[in-house]
Amino acid sequence: MKLASLKHGRDGRLVVVSRDLTRCAAAEGIAPTMQAALDDWATTAPLLAALAARLEAGSVAAAQPFDPRACAAPLPRAHHWVDGSAYVNHVELVRKARGAAMPDTFWTDPLVYQGGSDDLLGPTDEARFASEDFGIDLEAEVAVIVDDVPMGATPQAAANRIRLLVLVNDWSLRNLIPGELAKGFGFYQSKPATAFSPLAVTPDELGDAWRDGKVHLPLVSRINDAPFGAPDAGVDMTFSFPQLIAHAARTRRLGAGAIVGSGTVSNYDRSRGSSCLAEKRTLELLAGGKPQTPFLRFGDRVRIEMFDAAGSSLFGAIDQRVARAD
Amino acid sequence: MKLASLKHGRDGRLVVVSRDLTRCAAAEGIAPTMQAALDDWATTAPLLAALAARLEAGSVAAAQPFDPRACAAPLPRAHHWVDGSAYVNHVELVRKARGAAMPDTFWTDPLVYQGGSDDLLGPTDEARFASEDFGIDLEAEVAVIVDDVPMGATPQAAANRIRLLVLVNDWSLRNLIPGELAKGFGFYQSKPATAFSPLAVTPDELGDAWRDGKVHLPLVSRINDAPFGAPDAGVDMTFSFPQLIAHAARTRRLGAGAIVGSGTVSNYDRSRGSSCLAEKRTLELLAGGKPQTPFLRFGDRVRIEMFDAAGSSLFGAIDQRVARAD
Repeated sequence: MKLASLKHGRDGRLVVVSRDLTRCAAAEGIAPTMQAALDDWATTAPLLAALAARLEAGSVAAAQPFDPRACAAPLPRAHHWVDGSAYVNHVELVRKARGAAMPDTFWTDPLVYQGGSDDLLGPTDEARFASEDFGIDLEAEVAVIVDDVPMGATPQAAANRIRLLVLVNDWSLRNLIPGELAKGFGFYQSKPATAFSPLAVTPDELGDAWRDGKVHLPLVSRINDAPFGAPDAGVDMTFSFPQLIAHAARTRRLGAGAIVGSGTVSNYDRSRGSSCLAEKRTLELLAGGKPQTPFLRFGDRVRIEMFDAAGSSLFGAIDQRVARAD
Repeated sequence: MKLASLKHGRDGRLVVVSRDLTRCAAAEGIAPTMQAALDDWATTAPLLAALAARLEAGSVAAAQPFDPRACAAPLPRAHHWVDGSAYVNHVELVRKARGAAMPDTFWTDPLVYQGGSDDLLGPTDEARFASEDFGIDLEAEVAVIVDDVPMGATPQAAANRIRLLVLVNDWSLRNLIPGELAKGFGFYQSKPATAFSPLAVTPDELGDAWRDGKVHLPLVSRINDAPFGAPDAGVDMTFSFPQLIAHAARTRRLGAGAIVGSGTVSNYDRSRGSSCLAEKRTLELLAGGKPQTPFLRFGDRVRIEMFDAAGSSLFGAIDQRVARAD
């Protein structure tokens, strides 16, 4: 099934969305919000699935047209947002460009950072920044939303706690990163509010494309309506989602609704394009001595989407305009 | 006024607590949870204050005895937990011990990290870890809980968004830190679930001890009932809470209920003791060539509390036992 949160208050209003993304049905009778549904998934999931089946069959009298512009992030605020860097070839590339060796342990020990989760952007919300000088960049990613995960869960156990999949634009401020990472405590100002696809979908919605804890489909990014990248999220993903979740849960419990991201999707096959400008600029630097493509400007648009084999949009599109903060 | 969350479901049940910490009154008629109260503070705060006044006057018929063991964290799960390192003398000391110079910018640019906020421990919950080999350490701190803060807020504006104060034990796994920080993305596994005092109190509860955006009182830590440290939280705090909030809000909005921590409280006057074993061990290293005090063992108890001039406990005590995770 496909779920979304219509903009309403701080936590949105839960709806079930038809597979063709044209209609939705209020799910408030089952759970008022996505978080509430996740808090009691064993009870709510079967009821939501039944509602989704009725919606698909055209038998929900109160169905409404579905408008992604009315959507907040699936979880407009979450309690945990941890983002991996699972496409290690990307890390290797970026390090190579700055002449830094990458420790071999990066191939076996996931790199993650914790992001802010009190202000998650809806799919068509403006992405607002105080200055273009920050080096505004997209990072197109896939993420999972989990149920409660006990401390010390194995990847096998973690796999069974994945409830929903979403697309992510992990907005990054590249020119703030070097100074911030040099301080030693990781990202903070350089990772502003993250944006999410309109839909959060159960893994079965992906059919065979969801296997081995990875999403085996291209993640399509466009900048100002021009193709930017379509690397396959299932290729070159060094750590699967279950592995990332197990890493996150090594010393802590994760609560229902925790979001675990893949990091920038990236393939060794550079003809697939990139999921962030930093990678493209790094490739330009390595090829010609300096980056050619600028970071984003106010007014630029970024669109991120994923399609099934039949060309249907699985999550709806993240489609945001970069704008100047007041 | 003093607020607490009794253990109940995922988000607790809001109560108002008497100034002497002996009685509490259910506040569910005003807001079911602490988060709900913070989400609509302009409406709920006056009602909660009126209830607190009636409780103080002994005119709440349904008042109950207050038992801190029944408390969850004030916010059992929050949407944002950012912890500063505002006592820069502590950072300077730790760096000195490992022969690393501290950049001068550390005196003007706050160091912060983002912690997990989906599993915040109550004041008497066991602190559970898989292994003593992780190097289990306390970090006694003060934190503020804010209302919505707009992006780019000045310290002056941020000061007006502080709603509540709490005490924190930012549990740290010292032996996991070097490897994790060496990866470059900051803390994750090395910062497990954080614990909070039973009470969250409005700044006016501190009287003159709350000024200049700092808490001017000793933060008292005890390990296994022996005094460990009582540094003054108002002394040597390089960045005030309004400055920390403004730093956090530079590139993002903060949502109501975001928790902003001070970092380990530390005074240049080392006779005040420390707020974490890492600092004590560093002082031992500098004095005698090697640390003497071990990290915590399963069964150890840590108690963190703050008293007003009359000796009354302002926040109740964080009083936890270190235990082995299953």
